[in-house]
Amino acid sequence: MPVNPQRFLADLHALRSIGADGPGVVRPAFTEADIEARKWLIAQIEEIGLTPHIDPLGDVFGLADGRGLLLGSHTDSQPEGGWLDGAFGTIAALEVARAVMEDGGPPVSIVSFQDEEGRFGGLTGSTVWSGAVSLEDADTRVDSTGVTLADARRAFSGDTWVDPDRFTGFIEPHIEQGPVLDTAGEAVAIVDAIVGAREITIAFSGQQNHAGTTPMPLRRDAVQGFVAFATALNERMETLRGDRTVWTIGEVSVTPNASSIVPGSATFSVQWRDPDDDRLAAIEEAVQELAKETATARDLDLETSRYWALPPTQMDPELVARLDAAAEDVAPGQWRRLPSGALHDAMNVARLMPAAMLFVPSINGISHDFAEDTAEEHLVAGLNVLAKAVLG
Amino acid sequence: MPVNPQRFLADLHALRSIGADGPGVVRPAFTEADIEARKWLIAQIEEIGLTPHIDPLGDVFGLADGRGLLLGSHTDSQPEGGWLDGAFGTIAALEVARAVMEDGGPPVSIVSFQDEEGRFGGLTGSTVWSGAVSLEDADTRVDSTGVTLADARRAFSGDTWVDPDRFTGFIEPHIEQGPVLDTAGEAVAIVDAIVGAREITIAFSGQQNHAGTTPMPLRRDAVQGFVAFATALNERMETLRGDRTVWTIGEVSVTPNASSIVPGSATFSVQWRDPDDDRLAAIEEAVQELAKETATARDLDLETSRYWALPPTQMDPELVARLDAAAEDVAPGQWRRLPSGALHDAMNVARLMPAAMLFVPSINGISHDFAEDTAEEHLVAGLNVLAKAVLG
Repeated sequence: MPVNPQRFLADLHALRSIGADGPGVVRPAFTEADIEARKWLIAQIEEIGLTPHIDPLGDVFGLADGRGLLLGSHTDSQPEGGWLDGAFGTIAALEVARAVMEDGGPPVSIVSFQDEEGRFGGLTGSTVWSGAVSLEDADTRVDSTGVTLADARRAFSGDTWVDPDRFTGFIEPHIEQGPVLDTAGEAVAIVDAIVGAREITIAFSGQQNHAGTTPMPLRRDAVQGFVAFATALNERMETLRGDRTVWTIGEVSVTPNASSIVPGSATFSVQWRDPDDDRLAAIEEAVQELAKETATARDLDLETSRYWALPPTQMDPELVARLDAAAEDVAPGQWRRLPSGALHDAMNVARLMPAAMLFVPSINGISHDFAEDTAEEHLVAGLNVLAKAVLG
Repeated sequence: MPVNPQRFLADLHALRSIGADGPGVVRPAFTEADIEARKWLIAQIEEIGLTPHIDPLGDVFGLADGRGLLLGSHTDSQPEGGWLDGAFGTIAALEVARAVMEDGGPPVSIVSFQDEEGRFGGLTGSTVWSGAVSLEDADTRVDSTGVTLADARRAFSGDTWVDPDRFTGFIEPHIEQGPVLDTAGEAVAIVDAIVGAREITIAFSGQQNHAGTTPMPLRRDAVQGFVAFATALNERMETLRGDRTVWTIGEVSVTPNASSIVPGSATFSVQWRDPDDDRLAAIEEAVQELAKETATARDLDLETSRYWALPPTQMDPELVARLDAAAEDVAPGQWRRLPSGALHDAMNVARLMPAAMLFVPSINGISHDFAEDTAEEHLVAGLNVLAKAVLG
């Protein structure tokens, strides 16, 4: 393999030192540390002989002369981020491009997208580059302190966009950010889809009442409505779910939320994810139906609001096949296909060109946390799978 | 019947005008309006020929010369209170005492306890009078603005306590504050017990995780633990419950409470009430057992804290029998026995002497609200039942 694992790990640790906080990093988009990391990346790009390019959103490209694959991920982090989230994919791309520049091979360009982690909404750089949102609209977004994207990007941005037609496809290596590979003791996953997700907010309203003087049959208890709905949904999911379906009730709020008062209202989120859009739709139908049934049976008022829906993104079969073969070569029997349950820039880039991803394990599934980590052998296995898929 | 319903209603409305706010009243303990109401009551007591007495807690008594029954309730209100809560019982007592002073009969004394509604904890006057809490301890209690009871009671209090041995028993008329009588279309209830209550706070802790990347079998979801517990408790209650058992999950809090995060912890109250202390204990055992079973089955950590337990108070059988007979006389077939699901001063007074209560309906079960009301015919029925039980 022409890539150099020691050099790759050294670069990963060099990037880790920028915005370091204990074992983790603090590099939200357009902060001083983020910009320092992007400038450091540009220096590496120049050193290996690619042409650096900063686009209006602050995405950093390292462009090869010829038309070929684009590899990469992001170098910004969560406010309290792990050292590998985005960095692993960006530095693996850098190492593969460097190997090509040194030893020859097909043209390989690299990228670090800006604001993947969501200071201004999430996947911001790739969203605007892919045309899903205009720069004008994105510019009006504000972060949690009221700063607009337009103001923030003044500190680090260029004038021109990179033409996507330069690229034949995109591969994004990333940490899994979930427990599947770590639990199975496997080295790599090839991502065949980024799951779609839908979320609904449901509010049951009954009658707030004295918890001592209101007999059970005369109650219209919103929390009991919530419990009945959640139980019915679990039962229905036994037949509706696929292998990869997940559903989550993550947010619950009760009014007046006092132990001696029969609760008058309960509002809660229901979110579900799956690689198959038809299944997402079937679940939505079930959720709506069960909410109505519960409300009717318990004389509760029902309000539902559809918060968001994101269709699944299928990865490119040809790129996936190349990655499969490379994984079987590098880690025989130690890899699997896996849909991504989290969103990634590859979802946006798939609008422009064939796209695929590979995952390496997250120890204990931990991510978005200073404790995020991956065994070195798995980082290197991921690098080698990428190199093999790109270089053959 | 020697009592005068028109005079009784006129007095009720006179009291309603003190601290009036729309149809409701604002007379929390030791506020200007509360003190004005107590002074007004003292004037009525003097006018009918009883001896007024203010004790150190601000309880107002109207004392008859001989040993006999004590009748009454309270004249303080919730911060946004209904016009009948406490007032009905106090003015019904006043009217019965006046009838005795005018027409002869057994000695009847009356009382308005202080701070039934809980500016300083609830049932404060009767709690201290009954010896359950010392005046010194009560004095250190603070209201929601930081004022101590010791400071507040300086505005209205006397030097000496009334000797409970003056009284042969206590009857407290009150509004039901629940929907049972109103739903049944009945006029009066005779209270045979004030239910006991127990409350436990349960906290399930699992593992906070990404709602997209964490497969269902690898989740330790605290909200799903809560749902499973609540469902199991409902099922178990089908065999454990009595006719009068109620149970309530009124307070639920989830961490981190975000729709895209598998919830790491769920903390919730479980409260149950029943007139039978053995049943309260059996339910507590079931609650503890089901919480443990749920935690074990779902790999959740469990913490329970016993928040409070209050034993049931049985009303005096002889007084209850007198009230039963009076109710059947005044409202034949239009009354029932009912345990009180709410706490009342009669619970404390029962430590000192035989005690009983009667209820009149609350329209739509509404109380602790400006909209609280009772049909005049039912207010008068309650007065007549009290008069009949006391005077024969």
